Amino acid sequence: MPDDPRPDPAAYRALSRPSGARYIEVLDQRALPHAVERVKIASAQTAAQAIREMWVRGAPLIGAVGAYGLALALRADASDAALRASHAALDAARPTAVNLRWALDRVRATVAPLAIHLRAEAAWHAADAICAEDAAINDAIGRAGLALLRDLARRKSGVVNVMTHCNAGALAATAWGTATAPVFLGHAEGLPLHVWVSETRPRLQGANLTAWEMRERGVAHTLFADGASALLMRRGVVDIVLVGADRVAANGDTCNKIGTYHKALAARDNEVPFYVALPSPTLDPALADGDAIPIETRAADEVLSVTGRDSDGRTTSVTIAPAGTRAVNYAFDITPARLVTGFITERGVIAATRDALAARFPERFR
Amino acid sequence: MPDDPRPDPAAYRALSRPSGARYIEVLDQRALPHAVERVKIASAQTAAQAIREMWVRGAPLIGAVGAYGLALALRADASDAALRASHAALDAARPTAVNLRWALDRVRATVAPLAIHLRAEAAWHAADAICAEDAAINDAIGRAGLALLRDLARRKSGVVNVMTHCNAGALAATAWGTATAPVFLGHAEGLPLHVWVSETRPRLQGANLTAWEMRERGVAHTLFADGASALLMRRGVVDIVLVGADRVAANGDTCNKIGTYHKALAARDNEVPFYVALPSPTLDPALADGDAIPIETRAADEVLSVTGRDSDGRTTSVTIAPAGTRAVNYAFDITPARLVTGFITERGVIAATRDALAARFPERFR
Repeated sequence: MPDDPRPDPAAYRALSRPSGARYIEVLDQRALPHAVERVKIASAQTAAQAIREMWVRGAPLIGAVGAYGLALALRADASDAALRASHAALDAARPTAVNLRWALDRVRATVAPLAIHLRAEAAWHAADAICAEDAAINDAIGRAGLALLRDLARRKSGVVNVMTHCNAGALAATAWGTATAPVFLGHAEGLPLHVWVSETRPRLQGANLTAWEMRERGVAHTLFADGASALLMRRGVVDIVLVGADRVAANGDTCNKIGTYHKALAARDNEVPFYVALPSPTLDPALADGDAIPIETRAADEVLSVTGRDSDGRTTSVTIAPAGTRAVNYAFDITPARLVTGFITERGVIAATRDALAARFPERFR
Repeated sequence: MPDDPRPDPAAYRALSRPSGARYIEVLDQRALPHAVERVKIASAQTAAQAIREMWVRGAPLIGAVGAYGLALALRADASDAALRASHAALDAARPTAVNLRWALDRVRATVAPLAIHLRAEAAWHAADAICAEDAAINDAIGRAGLALLRDLARRKSGVVNVMTHCNAGALAATAWGTATAPVFLGHAEGLPLHVWVSETRPRLQGANLTAWEMRERGVAHTLFADGASALLMRRGVVDIVLVGADRVAANGDTCNKIGTYHKALAARDNEVPFYVALPSPTLDPALADGDAIPIETRAADEVLSVTGRDSDGRTTSVTIAPAGTRAVNYAFDITPARLVTGFITERGVIAATRDALAARFPERFR
């Protein structure tokens, strides 16, 4: 497309491992949308820091970075003690998204039975496999969700309006993303789509990341303050809500970015379908319901200040509250399963119930 | 209180008219919480600008400033033509809060029958009367709401947690405010209260104004991002939601700051009482329901950027989205009456129904 000034999607892959390299490169998501900066991660410590400080975020992506972090740790020391310690250190980087634990467990299960000198190489392969699998899941979720969008397009004339929250795009995963994968696929095949992008305070992943991804791919979109989603639905300009997930309990209760529960309530009150894109590694059948999901509390400063670009083009943080104000910063909330119209999984769209989850993912419920 | 460094509440009166003056002074709310600046308003044009550009905001306050604006206009020219033109110009400053139209109509009805040379003086008196009446309404709403807080305090041990949205405090009215008046009165009598302050994007009236008012008066409070209100309710740390209103239709549908509808949905889902402080000038019985209320759309830039104080202590705006991003900025939303537990009016607490409103305010429903 020589007339298209936008970069190839691969140009902003959130995570890559150059062929044969013993390090990974990630997009530093703290710099977006104002600057596109790649950072090299060559130690387990840096991987943990990147997850903790949100150079990378999004449940599938932190799982993948965690897996490579374990490979990096084993490269330095592949003993049982080092495996235990680095697994624990990486797992502690962020508590809510279960993908991190899932990926770390999977790499450990792969390498633990092996002789020590074989472990590091096996860990790299295991991490690569997690990424390849995530890309395939992105694709399958995209196709399953695309069927929903096509169906909406058939039943109405004109543009299909999709509301998102936070970022569940290519920046949250290893390929097309989860909740936005159907949008990207639909846009590519010419479906008339428009995306309502919720800014997602406090960290503004909607304004910083989703708006940027939509622009990069040429998808029509409009930003709004989080509080406006119910009014938009009441006005009839939202056809479907598509969000991601950080952890889903056995009964379908869904933990996702703070503010998701509001959107689910607004969708129910206005009869708008509310779908959660659910890659199976985000499912945690060990937890009976959402109340058991640990919700990360982050620094108050993320609420008390906002970072953006000032008129001189510098990245600047501004304080919005009186000095000394106390703030609380829960990073996630729980949407009760009863408010979820369905899960878009890599095995198709299913109801948000324990029975449906267990029937579609029996190996996870054993 | 010589040990208390906080200023007397009167020190931050949102609006004052020095004795005998033919101008008013307002707190410039754009500068808060970082600076306390008073501005003189000595012409109808400046009054309209102050309302339009939100030097002053809050339904009761813009009504009062509008009334003085009409007095200022008549001081310059008290002809029928000038009365008509200045009424129209002031009324156009902001569309949603019906208090502005109500106050302008009231001043006009007072002065129109008078000889031209008597009109300006009568208008000043009418505007003063509107302020005095608003102060009395603030007080009556405060006492009616205080009874609800006392009741909650009796039924639980420990602190009563009140959630607010936007600012319906002293900065939104001429005295104690509406939705926060019960909090101020309760705090003054020693009720153990804690206020959850919703930041209220895009203009951050919660973070900028309500947090400041709570600090000035020494009320315990915690700021949170708007998206967190449903989680806080689910966690059981909210005993009551108290919000203001910009216009209430005959059936009780309530127009208030964008994001209010979310809080009402979250309150219903978690069985938290949700009360709207409703001064009678905010009631618009001419509108059958909320769908007829005009919702102001403000500049996209309010969503695309955030203003605060940078590390050098300067007030700075930062852009949060990619260049060229489209944004929508509805300033208000409509909460259906079915989600409102009750209205706190100057004539007591009543149900959010047409029958209850008409029974308590029969003169408005004639």
